[in-house]
Amino acid sequence: MITDTAPSRARAGGRSARRAIRTAPKFDMLPGLTRALPVCEVMDGAQVERIDAASMDILENVGVQFRDPIALEDWKRAGARVAGEMVYLDRGLVRELIATIPETFTYHARDPQKNVRLGGRHSVFVPMTGAPYLRDLDDMRRNPTLADLEMFHKLSHMMPALHSSAHHIVEPYDHPISQRHLRITYSSMKHSDKMFMGMTTSPKNAEDVMEMCAILFGADFLEEHPVTTGNCNGNSPLVWDETMLGAMRAFCRRNQPVLCSPFVLGGANTPASVPATVAQLNAEALSALAYTQVIRRGCPAIYGHYLSTVSMKSGAPMAGTPEISLMNFMIGQMARFYCVPWRTSNTLGGAKTFDAQAGYESATTLSAVIHAGANYIWHSAGWNEAGMHCSVAKFVVDAEQCAMAHRMASGPQWDDFDEALAAIPDVGPGGHYLGHPHTQENFQTAFFMPELFDNNSIEQWVADGSREITERALIHARRLLDAYEESRLDPGVNEALLDYIARREREIPAADALNQEY
Amino acid sequence: MITDTAPSRARAGGRSARRAIRTAPKFDMLPGLTRALPVCEVMDGAQVERIDAASMDILENVGVQFRDPIALEDWKRAGARVAGEMVYLDRGLVRELIATIPETFTYHARDPQKNVRLGGRHSVFVPMTGAPYLRDLDDMRRNPTLADLEMFHKLSHMMPALHSSAHHIVEPYDHPISQRHLRITYSSMKHSDKMFMGMTTSPKNAEDVMEMCAILFGADFLEEHPVTTGNCNGNSPLVWDETMLGAMRAFCRRNQPVLCSPFVLGGANTPASVPATVAQLNAEALSALAYTQVIRRGCPAIYGHYLSTVSMKSGAPMAGTPEISLMNFMIGQMARFYCVPWRTSNTLGGAKTFDAQAGYESATTLSAVIHAGANYIWHSAGWNEAGMHCSVAKFVVDAEQCAMAHRMASGPQWDDFDEALAAIPDVGPGGHYLGHPHTQENFQTAFFMPELFDNNSIEQWVADGSREITERALIHARRLLDAYEESRLDPGVNEALLDYIARREREIPAADALNQEY
Repeated sequence: MITDTAPSRARAGGRSARRAIRTAPKFDMLPGLTRALPVCEVMDGAQVERIDAASMDILENVGVQFRDPIALEDWKRAGARVAGEMVYLDRGLVRELIATIPETFTYHARDPQKNVRLGGRHSVFVPMTGAPYLRDLDDMRRNPTLADLEMFHKLSHMMPALHSSAHHIVEPYDHPISQRHLRITYSSMKHSDKMFMGMTTSPKNAEDVMEMCAILFGADFLEEHPVTTGNCNGNSPLVWDETMLGAMRAFCRRNQPVLCSPFVLGGANTPASVPATVAQLNAEALSALAYTQVIRRGCPAIYGHYLSTVSMKSGAPMAGTPEISLMNFMIGQMARFYCVPWRTSNTLGGAKTFDAQAGYESATTLSAVIHAGANYIWHSAGWNEAGMHCSVAKFVVDAEQCAMAHRMASGPQWDDFDEALAAIPDVGPGGHYLGHPHTQENFQTAFFMPELFDNNSIEQWVADGSREITERALIHARRLLDAYEESRLDPGVNEALLDYIARREREIPAADALNQEY
Repeated sequence: MITDTAPSRARAGGRSARRAIRTAPKFDMLPGLTRALPVCEVMDGAQVERIDAASMDILENVGVQFRDPIALEDWKRAGARVAGEMVYLDRGLVRELIATIPETFTYHARDPQKNVRLGGRHSVFVPMTGAPYLRDLDDMRRNPTLADLEMFHKLSHMMPALHSSAHHIVEPYDHPISQRHLRITYSSMKHSDKMFMGMTTSPKNAEDVMEMCAILFGADFLEEHPVTTGNCNGNSPLVWDETMLGAMRAFCRRNQPVLCSPFVLGGANTPASVPATVAQLNAEALSALAYTQVIRRGCPAIYGHYLSTVSMKSGAPMAGTPEISLMNFMIGQMARFYCVPWRTSNTLGGAKTFDAQAGYESATTLSAVIHAGANYIWHSAGWNEAGMHCSVAKFVVDAEQCAMAHRMASGPQWDDFDEALAAIPDVGPGGHYLGHPHTQENFQTAFFMPELFDNNSIEQWVADGSREITERALIHARRLLDAYEESRLDPGVNEALLDYIARREREIPAADALNQEY
């Protein structure tokens, strides 16, 4: 965030490293979140075991459909019972396979200062992706271009609480769909030096992403270090398709993690029950997590999901509802039970504009996923209209909300407790603290001051133009973009990436949309 | 909430009592919340003891100012060291006094079906109070009248998750300030049969409230049963004034609970430190809680606070910030450490309109106070603009948010888990659940469907008039008010209340504002 904090003041006083981080220039990325809050556990041990047993029963007896010949062969070799496209997974095999998934690992970014740890108490915020529309800098809803995507990658680079520039935050409609993944990946790499996500829209596209990562980081480096993340959605109930499984193989063979994400519309493609939905989702996630280890033992992998409940009136997905929060708490418990890092979704919502509904939905979701102990917190900025558009205004506000959640989840700071207590007799009953030296020295770091909330009097607010948060956020986004400075790619790497893209664009027919089964 | 649920369907099937509650006609009050979620504890036992020790040191050595001759005499008799207006409380005395505060108790409402338990795992939602402005049914910001207050009491009566009609939700400016408390109390009693709050704007006003409660419930009944709540704000740091202490005595002598509420603007009237702010607030709350037991041993009393942090730029109170959430978690731990019910504030925020800022602030606060385990959750509907106005639109949306929080905090429902699991093999991989009998029977109760969130497609939303949440909420509020049916007071009681008001209005000069030191 832009503030008036002079760097000299921020560095004054030689205080603790944590305080230095908290007063650093406000474009700097916050370190990966290490959560100090206890997790919200709504199940006791016996209930966790009940979910586990129910999921294992599903895997053994109902089975999971893998609509992919290679995966079916892989499963046969791994010892699963395969009948047609149905795979029946013995619980012993599942437990043996998922046991080799690392509980924590480090993502490596282009700027090594921006590496982040994932799993256990370690969490990251990643912006939304996949929007076919945006609400732009004028709050106009329209189809996005590559320039719009670049804008979101720049904002991702600058917002301190975002740890990733993700991938296709918005879909660049001005590029052919068959070649789009190349431009998306390049923009992620070029406009931010944070980690990013990799397209999984087809196995071939995923291979292109891996090749570009090999150019950026070196092929050998990839073998040992996670540098990107793919998302593989399941088709709930209990189906994985060829596109997703092929992309999964492309990532796992290079030792790059994927999110194993059942796509849950609670009540429509799961039972009308919170615990039974969790049991099904858990079975689905486990089946894919196990398959990552069939592909490559020890490859990092992430327990994922997209999770909504469905309106009985309209069939529309809902967000910010109590059952989604409860399921997040429960799924977090299951992921920890299996010692696997866990991805969930943040800031989901169905509002059509950036109105109060969007605020309630996003804040409710953010709070739930923090208390649930999520690790890979995706869709953390910009999501609106059930993912149909990414809003610039909401993007910067959400990112500031993540910064506040980062602060909250880091827990209270006790380092100057005695010093602060000493101010109480100094000030005494009826006094005030603003002039006290301890206050003067600590106020800027003791209490978070949001840039995008207006807390002035109504008179001041009117004098400032009676601006609601959408307008203020768009002004803020323009200021950020004006201040953007590119963290330049090594020229040789840049050239190699552009050469690769040029070659692949010659090879891939612009009109070939057949391999785009997202 | 109004829904299309036919009562016959809601009663069909003879399912569990809980399910019956969940499908009851939607104006019915939800039972008092019995929280099943674990509380968020950010301090370990040693840190709780550190806060306790710091607070006791403050009480013993810094002292608390009681600006009230009667309280000073009371404290001398109780064995405290008193010097001028300063009272020094030995930790042994404090612990002995607060030990007699009931850990839980039952509030009695005019309709005994609406009695609610408070303390421990038992929580209630109470609307905001004290707004000098409202945003009305046309979203116009203006001074309120008694008719506006009556409207809010009617809405409080109808919103299922609100357990109280509170008192002066908005200030009825069309009545003389010196007589206003009579009309406010009558409106609370008449337009809702839920519990309500009692004015504490002066000791005499508090006595009037007690007299009116005695008319409504019987004087003897009051002696044994809490029926209302007063709020007594402290002047942080470490001051209690004559107005609040006098009102406190009026309530406690009749065995009616008060909220002992330090008024904290974190950083301005407390140290610039989260734990030190909690230590001071805790000392302040303890001093008043102890005094309630000097007034009457065993009288119920509630650990309270108003809590914000202050912007260093403007001095304005902030809400929805990470430190406020953390302090809520910590204060909840302290209240539980002392085994005293705990009041906090919900839906606080500084937005000037019902924009996304208001949504983020309210939802963040609601989530924090639920995870913190708050019991008396005040300001749960309508608060905006730092309490300067109560918004009709926000009132009904906040109340629905409370209903969602009620559902979430009640935890997952396991009663039909096996039955729901049995649907999974029925449906099988790639199937869908909407037609399954278990879904048909359980969908309405399995997943909360908010009335005031729009989750339709943008095309449907445009066809419906492109209405943002403010407009939809105001339409909803008008529909509610059209459907309002008064739960009539006993005619004799009603006449006695009106006689009392008429007599007191003759006795209290309309122009006498001198006793209105709120």
